[in-house]
Amino acid sequence: MQLAGRVAHMTGDGSDGWEIYYRARDLKARGVAVVNLTIGEHDIRTDPRILDAMAASARAGNTGYTVGPGKPDLRRAIAERVTARAGVATGPGNVMVTPGGQAALFAAHMVTLDPGDTGLYCDPYYATYPGTIRATGARDVAVPTRPETGFQPEAEAIAARAAGARTLLINTPNNPTGTVYTRRTLEDVARVAADHDLWLISDEVYDTQLWAGEHLSPRALPGMAERTLVVGSLSKSHAMTGSRIGWLIGPEAVIGAVTALATNTTYGLPGYIQDAGLAALSLGAAFEEAVSAPFRRRRDLAVACLASSNRLRLVPSGGAMYVMVDVRATGLSGNRFAERLLEAERIAVMPGESFGQAAAGHVRIALTVDDDALAEALARLAAFAEGLPDAG
Amino acid sequence: MQLAGRVAHMTGDGSDGWEIYYRARDLKARGVAVVNLTIGEHDIRTDPRILDAMAASARAGNTGYTVGPGKPDLRRAIAERVTARAGVATGPGNVMVTPGGQAALFAAHMVTLDPGDTGLYCDPYYATYPGTIRATGARDVAVPTRPETGFQPEAEAIAARAAGARTLLINTPNNPTGTVYTRRTLEDVARVAADHDLWLISDEVYDTQLWAGEHLSPRALPGMAERTLVVGSLSKSHAMTGSRIGWLIGPEAVIGAVTALATNTTYGLPGYIQDAGLAALSLGAAFEEAVSAPFRRRRDLAVACLASSNRLRLVPSGGAMYVMVDVRATGLSGNRFAERLLEAERIAVMPGESFGQAAAGHVRIALTVDDDALAEALARLAAFAEGLPDAG
Repeated sequence: MQLAGRVAHMTGDGSDGWEIYYRARDLKARGVAVVNLTIGEHDIRTDPRILDAMAASARAGNTGYTVGPGKPDLRRAIAERVTARAGVATGPGNVMVTPGGQAALFAAHMVTLDPGDTGLYCDPYYATYPGTIRATGARDVAVPTRPETGFQPEAEAIAARAAGARTLLINTPNNPTGTVYTRRTLEDVARVAADHDLWLISDEVYDTQLWAGEHLSPRALPGMAERTLVVGSLSKSHAMTGSRIGWLIGPEAVIGAVTALATNTTYGLPGYIQDAGLAALSLGAAFEEAVSAPFRRRRDLAVACLASSNRLRLVPSGGAMYVMVDVRATGLSGNRFAERLLEAERIAVMPGESFGQAAAGHVRIALTVDDDALAEALARLAAFAEGLPDAG
Repeated sequence: MQLAGRVAHMTGDGSDGWEIYYRARDLKARGVAVVNLTIGEHDIRTDPRILDAMAASARAGNTGYTVGPGKPDLRRAIAERVTARAGVATGPGNVMVTPGGQAALFAAHMVTLDPGDTGLYCDPYYATYPGTIRATGARDVAVPTRPETGFQPEAEAIAARAAGARTLLINTPNNPTGTVYTRRTLEDVARVAADHDLWLISDEVYDTQLWAGEHLSPRALPGMAERTLVVGSLSKSHAMTGSRIGWLIGPEAVIGAVTALATNTTYGLPGYIQDAGLAALSLGAAFEEAVSAPFRRRRDLAVACLASSNRLRLVPSGGAMYVMVDVRATGLSGNRFAERLLEAERIAVMPGESFGQAAAGHVRIALTVDDDALAEALARLAAFAEGLPDAG
């Protein structure tokens, strides 16, 4: 029995960096102590106040169908948050609640790309980007960014690939690089999007993990609200990765289209989880700051730990729960560095190659263990790099 | 800004029977007492034992990512249930846990249909079927069934539309008709599927709501396990509509494909909901019987209430939480009958036309209010039909 052709093209392009993740998991299962710095998940669990609100909602009978774009009170709360943070007027009609940010990402591409169209995304990229575009039947085309410019997207590189494209997917603060796009970058991106009549799909799920300044959403730039779809989520901001609650922000016509699509794909999300989301948002900015603070602290710690290394260079990091380290001076690829690091030191990091081509010769370090464990792991990682034979 | 072409083709073909539902909801919001027999949702809420298990799991820290095809213990429990009920050996590797039956339906079509392919489904149909097929980029083609044969699918009708088709979607026990496909029907369907090399997608979410005999899954027929994908859910069997927990059963290669697809669409479902699902299944057959018993009782009640009507004929009903009533003797369409019934009696039912063409001149009655309220509504409905002027 034959499967659809799209099945063969559903997974990503990156070399199989997940090898390291699986190998680390297997070692752990066999009782070997491994420091796992691969996955972008907090070292805390969801706050009990949020879980209590969820349990109370479920016990109160909110266990039936919830169809459409989300519960009105939650849509309103998200709209208010987006208005306040992004500085652009957003009403409940601009908000679709989705079962996680990934579902919003998929829905955004499903309503803007037809089979055969081209969808652009920036390399390095989060693992699901190419597959998400391909799942719609569209062609995925990567726009390379460069270590030399701190992995900021460049207008020329986008424009060179924009013929026939209908969407451009960007991500700031960025996974895997930790890069925060500058206003200049976002203005360039906006100009190219307008010139080539592209939908801009802006993944902003790390918008609370910002180490300096304020989050700038490209939707707030002049004329961009009508062509920008913003993906948001409570996963990273509120340590609710498993609860699958996110949203898509966009013009009302787009929200109508993704609502119709959801009827055919997921059919709403649990009312009690929506109530948990409302409770989470009601905890306010101080709570969000408390959830993100450890990553800021650990970013600073990584800067300090690696400052004196001759072999390792930290990519300037402005946000997100990762740092990216340039290991090219060791003469090893990111893959090989990660493999040997796991073998020698039992420290698991993600090879840059698993995020595309642009971050080859780098590794991504998730800042997701406690400060002492991270400091020790980074010291060992730096010593490991120093101890490698000279390149070439 | 232009949306994808698929957006215009995402919703169904049925005439807008949801008008009645929305009108009833508006009346209710304005304080008018309406008996709502439109929606297939229990008049009970999810059992507290299931919700307690969910809350306990969440509080125990199961709030992180759960990727892949589902938690091993839940996949095992579902596999055991399917093996026991369908009588066909099913292992955890044949099970993908999905955020609801609709997500399983969508995934099944996404991995078997490419843009431009044809997907078949039987008319009358559950509202999302055509849109689900269209969302994949495929063409949806309805196979009509007939009131004269109790809406059982007929091999000739399927075969006549099978050229170029890759999938056939069936649903037994059936929404909206209440029809349970006979062994003969399913053998015919299986033969046509094999002859035309079709994937058979079998929606069996009402498999516990069966008023006589045992549920027959076409996957259990000789040679069919390799080409049948079964959609299941806890929504109807365990009154968990809002929790969005379902599954797809199929060959391991298909489960691998839908797992890869899920990475790009929904990215797993909450671990604590999976634990709630496991708790629900552990309540056993007696619990499932208790959840379905009211619908059997009310089906019998509907048979009794409408037996003496000259104008109304009940479609022989073998299962599901609905009965279908033939109103053609009144000279009214299903749409017009439902509109006038709502106006005159404040009783809301779904016009047959909202489920396609084949059930024109019928209305669907959801058995989802308590027995006394249902009996009274049916008596008023019958009297209303008798009081209509003679047809023609």
